[in-house]
Amino acid sequence: MTTHINGIKVDQLVETVNQVKDNKDIAKFKFRAANKWVSGTHTQAIVTSFYGALKEDDSRDPMLFEIDEPPVLLGENIGPNPVEYLLVGLSGCLTTSMVAHAAVRGIQIKGIACRLEGDLDLQGFLGISDKVPVGFKEIRVFFKIDADVSDDEKEELIKMAQQYSPVFNTIANPTPVVVRLD
Amino acid sequence: MTTHINGIKVDQLVETVNQVKDNKDIAKFKFRAANKWVSGTHTQAIVTSFYGALKEDDSRDPMLFEIDEPPVLLGENIGPNPVEYLLVGLSGCLTTSMVAHAAVRGIQIKGIACRLEGDLDLQGFLGISDKVPVGFKEIRVFFKIDADVSDDEKEELIKMAQQYSPVFNTIANPTPVVVRLD
Repeated sequence: MTTHINGIKVDQLVETVNQVKDNKDIAKFKFRAANKWVSGTHTQAIVTSFYGALKEDDSRDPMLFEIDEPPVLLGENIGPNPVEYLLVGLSGCLTTSMVAHAAVRGIQIKGIACRLEGDLDLQGFLGISDKVPVGFKEIRVFFKIDADVSDDEKEELIKMAQQYSPVFNTIANPTPVVVRLD
Repeated sequence: MTTHINGIKVDQLVETVNQVKDNKDIAKFKFRAANKWVSGTHTQAIVTSFYGALKEDDSRDPMLFEIDEPPVLLGENIGPNPVEYLLVGLSGCLTTSMVAHAAVRGIQIKGIACRLEGDLDLQGFLGISDKVPVGFKEIRVFFKIDADVSDDEKEELIKMAQQYSPVFNTIANPTPVVVRLD
């Protein structure tokens, strides 16, 4: 029998948790992307394979993403810019983390929407000031949650999303990024 | 006269720097995304407007991104997962930062490609262990740079990319993320 809550296969999730408790290596994943510079601020990224659950997975077709800047930032609007892709990832991660952990607790969700805004002072990127952060100074995320639960329980869902979201925790905490010549 | 190096309009970049030195508010940008949950691990993100250079810009058509997980992580491969989008953003940001700052220094780039890999231990997301990071434990980025410069100069380009990349600095340093009910 398959139990679906919020479209999450809860029995598969519980089984995964039990398998990981027996063998922690099952939980070790490696996610990847590749990027090729086209010209100016325009680059193309590709996502295909990953490693996880003890094996390589290259079953997905390559997914290509155009990355650029708007004209005011020297680009031609061929795609969103890099910091916007970061917000895209954060938006999906907080939402999915909320939905999955709600499912495990038996909380039915009817709908979730969120909007994100991040403050970026380009004095950092431009090398004009080393007193402002080069990255986002602050990111704000506002959630609308449609579910038959109290406001306190909605606040709990917001907390769970932050507690368990990999992208949120990658951004909120310092994460080592090693950059080298290949 | 327009000076293009690496496809970067260097005169526009220098002019922007001079304008920002006169009025720091020109450099203050707000980037945004919105997200709607579909079902299970599947969400859709949209990028459209931003604020910057003292005005709202909603000239771009909405750009939609499918976010999902592979079957082993309860999804249906409708799109890359959230942490992969984060790597997409990081790949473009390091590359563009390198290209732009090389252009300002008059360094001609013929080609750049990079590949990224991040280690994610899902014991954090699953709530099995609070001893492993919930986010990426480490992200590695490997660059191939085609340019008529020495290896030392290529290492300098790698350093500049890290110094000036907003996404790199958002990830490598702790960044406040405020999550609230709307």
